[in-house]
Amino acid sequence: MEGSERVPLGNKAARVDGAPDKKELEALTRELLTQLTDLQDAFHADGRHSLLLILQGRDASGKDGVIKSVYGAFNPTGVRVAAFGPPTALELRHDFLWRVHQVVPPRGMIGVFNRSHYEDVLAVRVRKLAPESIWKERFEQINHFESMLHANGVVIRKCFLHISQDEQRERLLSRLDDPRKNWKFRVEDLDDRALWDDYTEAYRDVLSKCSTPSAPWYVVPSDEKAVRNYLVAQMLVDTLQALHPTYPSMQPAVRDAARNFT
Amino acid sequence: MEGSERVPLGNKAARVDGAPDKKELEALTRELLTQLTDLQDAFHADGRHSLLLILQGRDASGKDGVIKSVYGAFNPTGVRVAAFGPPTALELRHDFLWRVHQVVPPRGMIGVFNRSHYEDVLAVRVRKLAPESIWKERFEQINHFESMLHANGVVIRKCFLHISQDEQRERLLSRLDDPRKNWKFRVEDLDDRALWDDYTEAYRDVLSKCSTPSAPWYVVPSDEKAVRNYLVAQMLVDTLQALHPTYPSMQPAVRDAARNFT
Repeated sequence: MEGSERVPLGNKAARVDGAPDKKELEALTRELLTQLTDLQDAFHADGRHSLLLILQGRDASGKDGVIKSVYGAFNPTGVRVAAFGPPTALELRHDFLWRVHQVVPPRGMIGVFNRSHYEDVLAVRVRKLAPESIWKERFEQINHFESMLHANGVVIRKCFLHISQDEQRERLLSRLDDPRKNWKFRVEDLDDRALWDDYTEAYRDVLSKCSTPSAPWYVVPSDEKAVRNYLVAQMLVDTLQALHPTYPSMQPAVRDAARNFT
Repeated sequence: MEGSERVPLGNKAARVDGAPDKKELEALTRELLTQLTDLQDAFHADGRHSLLLILQGRDASGKDGVIKSVYGAFNPTGVRVAAFGPPTALELRHDFLWRVHQVVPPRGMIGVFNRSHYEDVLAVRVRKLAPESIWKERFEQINHFESMLHANGVVIRKCFLHISQDEQRERLLSRLDDPRKNWKFRVEDLDDRALWDDYTEAYRDVLSKCSTPSAPWYVVPSDEKAVRNYLVAQMLVDTLQALHPTYPSMQPAVRDAARNFT
């Protein structure tokens, strides 16, 4: 059995058996978000690292939802959100890492990518936008790129928001009925659903080939939004706490100047 | 009397007589923030305009506080925060509008500048970093620039967060005692306080020369944080409502595709 086949991405894996109920999870998540607010302040002051969360997932898997619900806890000044749609004409004339490299968060900042360079081994592969000889090389290129970022202070975490086929169906249908959401749909979004199994295979390769100690992938069961938000928030709290962010000391010259302060 | 002398920037103008009490204001502000969340969603979908709030004010006047408290209501995906410190070596080799132009929010986005090109007629003037012949030209250059942005869909609002000398003193002293805040201080921050009256004069010129119908300045009494947040939130609600943001219709092709949706 190849490594990639062992990654469980069936419909069952989109739920957590025996999870606490929604209300309890939401209360736990609120506590985590308060911790995130405090941790971010120290992380920004500390300035040794940046944090980059990469969100991938099928349509309606909750990428926007995570950014709104979890990243909403952060002070907007310290946050950089980048969303990657189909590449522009200019972006296509560059290597596939060019556009993401430009928006990697600088030290002190907390970034999130809504889709990312992983689309170049997902959509590009499944929709046959580049030959296999091209995209097959990219797993290693991505690992080298992320490893370089890690060595330069970027803490990388990657979440695949995993939903079941039934849940996606429900969400897409309800979005199509919602005038605040249905304007966003392109016909291609619906096409992707027909390619479900091809995407599963592509995701399995991503998860098995590009999960490294310095930039691990997390498969987040995402059929229940409360579970999803709780798990992402908990992972971010753990990640930030492990860095032990500390406030720098006041410059001695400031203390002197403050003595004469009127 | 010159126009600029009529701008009331004394200590009294930093408070609102007979304002509701803090608790009441905070409750009113929470309602406004809920409205902002909804308005942003429609504004983003509508995509005809971008919104740019320019925040200026002395040290400790609450620029960061407004971003955290008011901009925290927005979905982070639709927000762009830009903070301008002393220009870098590269920025100094460009015209003074170059660095701000690059981060003007694109249509659908809500941006905020924490300090801005106005520093080039404030700090630059007061600290004599450029001769008068240079900075005097900039009021008109700024008006032309902002007018061009307005004509291209950027809705501009500008807030001067006005605090009194006593309030600034209290806030600076309490920050100097707070290890989560005192690391940020540079000696120059304290120097600026000694130049209070020079800055007042410079602000008067900014407010009288660069307040235009398409990019008005608001003097926000900011000694009370609850008053400040309420006033900024109310102004943003009014601004967004006046644009009557509406959701686009679903593409007919999507409705057709959805009929065969499984």
